[in-house]
Amino acid sequence: MTASHAELWAIAQDLADVARQETLRHFRSPALQAETKESDRFDPVTQADRAAEAAMRAILDERRPDDAILGEEFGHKPGTSGLTWVLDPIDGTRGYMSGTPTWGVLISVADDTGPLMGIIDQPYIGERFSGGFGRAEATGPLGKAPLGCRGPRPLQEAVLFSTFPEVGTEAEERAFRALSRQVRLTRYGMDCYAYALVAAGQIDLVVEAGLQPYDVHAPIAVIQAAGGIVTDWTGGPAHGGGRIVAAANRIIHEQALAVLSQA
Amino acid sequence: MTASHAELWAIAQDLADVARQETLRHFRSPALQAETKESDRFDPVTQADRAAEAAMRAILDERRPDDAILGEEFGHKPGTSGLTWVLDPIDGTRGYMSGTPTWGVLISVADDTGPLMGIIDQPYIGERFSGGFGRAEATGPLGKAPLGCRGPRPLQEAVLFSTFPEVGTEAEERAFRALSRQVRLTRYGMDCYAYALVAAGQIDLVVEAGLQPYDVHAPIAVIQAAGGIVTDWTGGPAHGGGRIVAAANRIIHEQALAVLSQA
Repeated sequence: MTASHAELWAIAQDLADVARQETLRHFRSPALQAETKESDRFDPVTQADRAAEAAMRAILDERRPDDAILGEEFGHKPGTSGLTWVLDPIDGTRGYMSGTPTWGVLISVADDTGPLMGIIDQPYIGERFSGGFGRAEATGPLGKAPLGCRGPRPLQEAVLFSTFPEVGTEAEERAFRALSRQVRLTRYGMDCYAYALVAAGQIDLVVEAGLQPYDVHAPIAVIQAAGGIVTDWTGGPAHGGGRIVAAANRIIHEQALAVLSQA
Repeated sequence: MTASHAELWAIAQDLADVARQETLRHFRSPALQAETKESDRFDPVTQADRAAEAAMRAILDERRPDDAILGEEFGHKPGTSGLTWVLDPIDGTRGYMSGTPTWGVLISVADDTGPLMGIIDQPYIGERFSGGFGRAEATGPLGKAPLGCRGPRPLQEAVLFSTFPEVGTEAEERAFRALSRQVRLTRYGMDCYAYALVAAGQIDLVVEAGLQPYDVHAPIAVIQAAGGIVTDWTGGPAHGGGRIVAAANRIIHEQALAVLSQA
């Protein structure tokens, strides 16, 4: 089954629509029950996570039965088309459980080379950042707008985001702090929304470590479509997860890599 | 000039409406220019800050000429009525400059005893948390809902927020970290939105230090109206600013104070 870019774009939007419904059904509900996936740390899985991914998979099973699926909650489904849908129904589960408006639904479609198109959707705000196949746009409370990363500025003027101040391992955290000391402002707590802010031209850098493929696929697609660059900390491909640098442009990306590699 | 509660409530809503317009006019605008108020740290003041406070003051000058005003941008205007309007046109200027949806407009009306009624407004989401004079309610993307803090739970199950991981002085940060180690989850980066999450029953604690009166007046009013409690770190009045503990209920408040005072 071959697929036009327009068809894949439209299906991705439909996935985001159903995930928005399912995640909002439980958001801020007093009945929201967290379970613990791993016994050694707090990692809540919610009904909303599972319901949203199941709803997205149902659409793909019907409309793209030959595509593979990789989802956070229900694992890998093999395919034969060469395309893989990568789904994270709620990126930022801790933020979701705390009622913040910064978690998101991550959807992307990839081939062997990496993500081709992606969506970062924030259901509560009603805001969606989509990029790939030559398009990069946001829809939200103020309407529709093109996405575009901002231009180069000195590292000393840059704004850096990461979800937690405890970034990865001890060595990774040391490297992050070395970079943090050089930028103008470091902020935390935005989950996947930080990547959307790079694509929207609002901030310069997001640096994280210990990420999964489903955490990064959609951000990579959206930021690349908006003119930015996302790699690992050595400048290599980022879609396998791990250590991530998302940058508004090549110049600030090189500056950030230089600091991270020295530390 | 005497004022009914309904009149003060309605005026506060009108102030929030004009501030929403003024702050959104510049939000995420590429032309947004930050200035530096203090030379030794990054503290941007924007056109939006000033325009929003000026618009709110214009309404008060007309409709409540005898009330005092205390605003972040234009200082103190004396009054004769015994009431003071406390205004922070953009709480979380760094978040505003970075495009996050977690800054807010803070509005409150106080007498000698402290804040009587307050509003935390998030213009981009279109979300407003109002409390005082026997009412506590939120309006937002999903409609209108009553506010209510959540009930007691063990400190080990609690969720704690603070805007920055660097909380106040070295001693204050040490105390904060002692508390952070005891709770289930600590998150950062929400600006005044964290206080709204306490009032909305989503989280248990916000702990900060080095705050100004205009940072805390509205959160105090909203959280108290929702059944919570806000004091300084010794259990005394919080509306003068400084070290703040905002808690969902008396029990978790006492537990937090016990840890903060030992550290």
